[in-house]
Order: sequence, then C-alpha cells, then structure tokens
Amino acid sequence: MTTQVNLLLTGDELMNGDVIDTNSVMFAEHLSDIGLTIRKKVTIADDLSLLQAEIVQLSQSADVLIINGGLGPTVDDLTSQALALACGVELELNPHAHLHLKNWAERRKTQLNKPNLKQAYLPIGCDIIANETGSAVGFSYQLNHCLILCTPGVPSELTHMLKDEIIPKLKALFPIINQHKMTRMQTFGLGESTLQALINDKIPTWPTEITIGFRAAMPMLEVKLSVSCAKGHSILPHWQNKLSLLLGDHVLAIGKSNKITIAEYILPLLTESQQKITVAESCTGGLIASQITAIPGSSAVFEAGFVTYSNNMKQKLLDVPAQTLMNHGAVSKETVLAMAKGALAKSNADFVIAVSGIAGPDGGTKDKPVGSVWIAWGNKQSLQAKYYCIPVARQYFQQIVTARSLDLVRRMLINSEESPYYNRIN
Amino acid sequence: MTTQVNLLLTGDELMNGDVIDTNSVMFAEHLSDIGLTIRKKVTIADDLSLLQAEIVQLSQSADVLIINGGLGPTVDDLTSQALALACGVELELNPHAHLHLKNWAERRKTQLNKPNLKQAYLPIGCDIIANETGSAVGFSYQLNHCLILCTPGVPSELTHMLKDEIIPKLKALFPIINQHKMTRMQTFGLGESTLQALINDKIPTWPTEITIGFRAAMPMLEVKLSVSCAKGHSILPHWQNKLSLLLGDHVLAIGKSNKITIAEYILPLLTESQQKITVAESCTGGLIASQITAIPGSSAVFEAGFVTYSNNMKQKLLDVPAQTLMNHGAVSKETVLAMAKGALAKSNADFVIAVSGIAGPDGGTKDKPVGSVWIAWGNKQSLQAKYYCIPVARQYFQQIVTARSLDLVRRMLINSEESPYYNRIN
Repeated sequence: MTTQVNLLLTGDELMNGDVIDTNSVMFAEHLSDIGLTIRKKVTIADDLSLLQAEIVQLSQSADVLIINGGLGPTVDDLTSQALALACGVELELNPHAHLHLKNWAERRKTQLNKPNLKQAYLPIGCDIIANETGSAVGFSYQLNHCLILCTPGVPSELTHMLKDEIIPKLKALFPIINQHKMTRMQTFGLGESTLQALINDKIPTWPTEITIGFRAAMPMLEVKLSVSCAKGHSILPHWQNKLSLLLGDHVLAIGKSNKITIAEYILPLLTESQQKITVAESCTGGLIASQITAIPGSSAVFEAGFVTYSNNMKQKLLDVPAQTLMNHGAVSKETVLAMAKGALAKSNADFVIAVSGIAGPDGGTKDKPVGSVWIAWGNKQSLQAKYYCIPVARQYFQQIVTARSLDLVRRMLINSEESPYYNRIN
Repeated sequence: MTTQVNLLLTGDELMNGDVIDTNSVMFAEHLSDIGLTIRKKVTIADDLSLLQAEIVQLSQSADVLIINGGLGPTVDDLTSQALALACGVELELNPHAHLHLKNWAERRKTQLNKPNLKQAYLPIGCDIIANETGSAVGFSYQLNHCLILCTPGVPSELTHMLKDEIIPKLKALFPIINQHKMTRMQTFGLGESTLQALINDKIPTWPTEITIGFRAAMPMLEVKLSVSCAKGHSILPHWQNKLSLLLGDHVLAIGKSNKITIAEYILPLLTESQQKITVAESCTGGLIASQITAIPGSSAVFEAGFVTYSNNMKQKLLDVPAQTLMNHGAVSKETVLAMAKGALAKSNADFVIAVSGIAGPDGGTKDKPVGSVWIAWGNKQSLQAKYYCIPVARQYFQQIVTARSLDLVRRMLINSEESPYYNRIN
C-alpha cells in the first residue's frame, strides 16, 4: 500500500502573490528521493479557522500531513494554535522548545521577548523536531492514523530540517519506501526529445523497471532514473552505467542531487593545472565573465575579460584587423578567431573564449539571421571556431551562447574527443 | 459581502517538483488589482477522480473557482473531462473551440491530429473564453452558485487570457470590486523598514483608508498602495503624490504594474542624449556590462566594457598607475577613479562606472572586510567615488553593487540632487 502524503502551506504572502512558493519543490525533491509523492497540496492564508478545518480534513485522507509555515513569533503565525484546536488539546510551554529558544537567544546575545516565547507554546503531547538554524523548533503530532509534521517556512531552516530530521524519520517509519531509489545525472547539450530518441535507438532493451524522467534546469538537463521494486534496485547500477556511457561527455555530474554549473566544473580543472582563462565577448556582453567570476576563488583563474560590443572596440582593444571586419563582418569565423588571439595576447591567460553573434531582436540579415553566432575557443596552441544558429529571445540566446562556450572549453579541458550534441535548442 | 475565489491547479509537474508554480503569483496580482483575494488554493496531480472531487468541493465554498492547467492535447490533460463529471454533463465537440483549433492549425500550416482535436471536446453548456496565443480555448461553467473558469497552464497564454478575458469578466460580474484599487511604485535604494520609518516620521497623518504594502523584487522594492472604500478612492491621488514626493528620486516608476530595471531606465536617457557608457569592473566581474547588454538596443549606448580582475590587468588595460595600487590597494578611492579615467580614455564613452571590492568569501582584512566596495561614476567633467560596505553572500553582493552603480549613474543623468538612502541592505 502506498504511503499518502498531504502538504498544507500557510502564509498570507503565498496567497497575495508576494512570494513564489519554492518550498514545495524542496519537499517534492526530498520526498521523491525516498519514494514518496505528495497527493494533495493546499495553500491558505494565515486564518485560524481555515487552518484548523484544513488540518482536520487533510489528516483524514493521508498517512502523513506536512504543515509548512506559521511557526514564527508574530500574531499571524498560527500553526501551533490551529493544530491544538484540530487535535482537541491545549497549548503548553514546552520545556524542550523553551530551552532551544533560550540557547538561541544566548548565542545571539539577546533577551527573549514575549513574541519569541510564543514559539515555545506547543500542543500538549507533541514531539519536538530539532531546528539547527532557526528560533522555532518543528513538532509532530499523531492524530488518529495521520502523522502531522509542522515545519518552518524559512527555506534555509526547512532545508536543514528536511535533510537531518524529517526524511530520516519518514524513512524509518515507512520502510517500504526504502525500495524506492532515484539517481540524477546533470547533463548539458542534449534536449529531452534528442535524449529520449537516443535511448530508444541505442538501448532498445531499456528495462521497464527503471523509469526515466527529465527536468529542464536551464541550461542543464537533469536526467532522473527511478526504481521502486527489488529487481529495479538490483539492475539500476548496470543500466545507469550504460546510459552514462551513451551520453558520454554530456554528463557533468552523477548523484542524488549533485547540481553543478559548467563554470563550476571548469574552475577546479583550471586551478589544478594553474591555467587561466580570458573572454572576449560581443553578443553575450559580459555574461560569460560574470558567470566565471560568480564563483568563489575565480580570481585564481581569471584576470581579465573584454566586452567589445562595437567594431571599433574590437579593433582598438583586441587588435582585430579592420580588413577582417570589413571583408567578413563582425559575426564571422575570422573575426572571432582574431578576437580570441587578441584577448590571449593582451591578457595573461592560457585559455580563451571569443563570441560574436546577433542577439536580436534587430540586426539580422538574410545571410546572418538573428540567432547567428560564432564561438572561438582554445589556447595558444590550438584555436577552433564554430557557427551556431539559436533563434530565440535575446536574453535566452545570451544564456545559451554562454553555456555552450563554457562547455566547449570544458570538453577541451577533459580532452573530450566526442562531438557535442548541440543539434537543438536545449 | 466579499466575493470568494478558490484556485485549483493541476499538473504532475507541479507535484513532483519539476516546475515552480509561478502562475499563482500571476493570479494573485491580477485579482488583487480588482480587489479579489484567493481564499484557498489546491494543487493536485493529473488524476481524474481527485480532480472531479476537488471541483465539487471547491465550488461549494466559493463564488468563483479558477482551474489552471490540464487543457492540453495529451492524455494527462483532464480538466474538461473532470469538469463534465463534476457537473454531471457530457462532453461534446464544441463548434467554437473546433473553429479556433482549425484556424490555429491553418496559421501554422499543419493538420489537426486526434490529440489536437481532443481540445475541442468540452462540457455541454459551457461558454468559451478566447485564447489568442494558444491552441486550447478556456471555458467557463456555472455550477450551482459557483462560476468555474478553466484556464491554460502555459504562463504566456495565461497572461493574455487573464488580462483580456478573465479580469474584465470578473469586474463586470462583481461590480463591488470596482471600489478596490491598487497602485504600485517601483523604488530603489530603500529597505522596507527604512521606508516604513520614513513614512511614520514624515507623514504621521497617513490615512487608515490607504494600506501600504511592500514586495521585495531584488534589487527593487515595490510599494503597493491599496484602497477599498469610496473615501480611500477619492483621497488616493493626493496621498500617492505626497508619498512620491517624499521618496523623491528613489522612485523609478509609478503605475499598476510598471516593472522596470535600473539599466532599462538609463538606456533611453543615454540614447536620447546620444551619449555612451562604459564600465570597468573588478568585483562585479562583468555583471554590470551584462545587465546593460541584456537590453535590446544597448549597442547604441554601449561599445565596450573592461573586466579587470587582477592588479596586473588594471594597470595593463586601464593604465591604473602601479604606484596607486601599491599605495592605496585595489579596493580604494584612488584605484576606482584611475580605473574610471582609464576606461573613459580607452573607450568611446561619455559616462563610466568603475567598481572594485571584496566579494568574498575570502580576501577580507581588518581594514577592508569582505563586503567593502568603492564605486566611481561620472563623465569626463565630473567623476565621483563612494565607499560602501555590503557584507552579504558573494553573488548577492555582486548584484547589489551592480544595482547601486547603475543607480548612481541614473541619478546623475536625471540631475538628482538628493542623496540616496543606501543606508541598509536592500
């Protein structure tokens, strides 16, 4: 029998549009890792009678009810009170929660005030769920056949509580879910349909016990493999390996939730080999440089970048010959190669990326439509250049060009010999 | 009596964490503009019996039930079928929906296939809601006392349908809501608590009929003024004006939902006066340039940007004197001014921004802790520089520095004489 989980989110800010609900995604991801799915999710404002009624109703149709939000110190934080009413018990000053609050205040060298103290008044008979990072503890209560878990709305507190407390607790309580397993692969360069077609074509015997799912996480595509029976469990490593070999260097990371950006992948490779990278950007206008420098420690591998938007500046700052621009235009193989050479000569770098393209919406011609881009990449010994056409909205175009450029350098750094599958917009 | 609105969202992707629900925010914003709030929001997977049960239940406790998603051509799009079951009617090939589909296919020069055609099978007796941008029409059905509106899950389609169809329809049906009005101001530089304290201090007679709300939309802060009675309506213009005068040049836009970025504000000012801007970036690593070049038409005002991350490159590319770096360090007034002068001399620009700071997590000292930053800005006639300390996480720091730099130029361009309120992290 499947374990049923309901989710109840509370907060005025979730109802009036001030906040986008990202906690739901966090719950779904963590629960799916142990084979649980959410059956129904209800979101309501901070309203005591609505909350009480929803707790009663949602607890009747689930084995687990997770309540998120409403644990704070202000008058509109009502979860504790609503749960007590729904369960027909009183609130009491919970000694564990009280101690937690006192320690919390002590660490911050502040005094507990009355609103703070409200966070220690919990339904009689509830169990505490530790909150390492915030002032409010979580708590659980068994109402008839349903386990109710009350969790904080602050995302950073929720992350810790989910990982350290809730998921291990649920895993122990519902051991059948241990049969479920999911692994994720972070890939770049393949679209969903290309990837699916590739699997159908090259691994036609893919077993039904392993479900393949996709999640677009621009510019990456996450591939999810999930199994929920003993056989699936035992064959997963073999088929995961097979898939990983098929996808080759399109795979950047394998693991439960091993998220990584392409720039993050490149940085340690350059650092270890004590090599530096520079960029000469036209159509991406600084985005490649900013993605590299967003990473702590990037100063070890990045000294300078050039944003040369006009032809004039391509000549002046990067010594692109006027003749090259005149004969071939700014968006050409010759120009990006000259930009790349110029950037290498002017900076202290070993590797280089140079891009020139037409981001749109204007500036396209019949021969070079909006979405055209030349990317040059390499080092002093070996420079290459490739043309792509990516006819999408301006900022999306800039993001894709940035990702592809970084990926081409990544492939060079790992000595990849395969040709990347940039055959569709991904 | 208040009009009650319930919202039902359907889609496996909303339950398994693959998609963050942004449609809810869109509903909340549009509905709040006409004085409606959402009472309860339920999200479920694509499951026929669950959907049917929720439609019945949610329609009993509201005047309006909006269903979002499940209008597509595939087998897991079940809204039409579930609504028919909930209302006890059959599905029929709706002639209006059919015509809409035929026209849609014709424009795309494709043939309608069987899955497409499914989108024209709607509950007998429903009314069509036009969908200008997609293949699936929306539809409405009156079930007992509740008006049920079925809307598309694709955000771009939903935007149009909400604005052009749903909101005018609701406004006509529930005229009392015309008494409600909300205006928004997009501000930069003020934090919520600073802004609230400023109002308390300077406009102590602020009327109770006008509610002030805030919405943090990094790096901007949206100020929302709402009224819901006749008196509030009549006094709103006066007090909005008073507030706008108080906030002065912190206000970038006033209007219903007049969202704007600082770079977008600056671009037309520079274009009109035929002036250009360049940037010399250290700690922001290309982010300022990329925010300017993200805007269509930026090539008219931006020719080049310099990302000079190392001291060496500050000397080589921007002619910052070695002596200046040695005597004052890279994060100093003298260095950013020299960077600004160098960038102006090397580029074809009239205006310049130069930044140098410590983004962290490493690199801080006792005198110059992580979060320290010097910003220089101005033109050939007048260069200024200011120091700020913004001790937050690396990427957040880079975003705030970028926004402040652009704002300082904005203030110069509009000849602002007031001193901006960058006194807290906003």
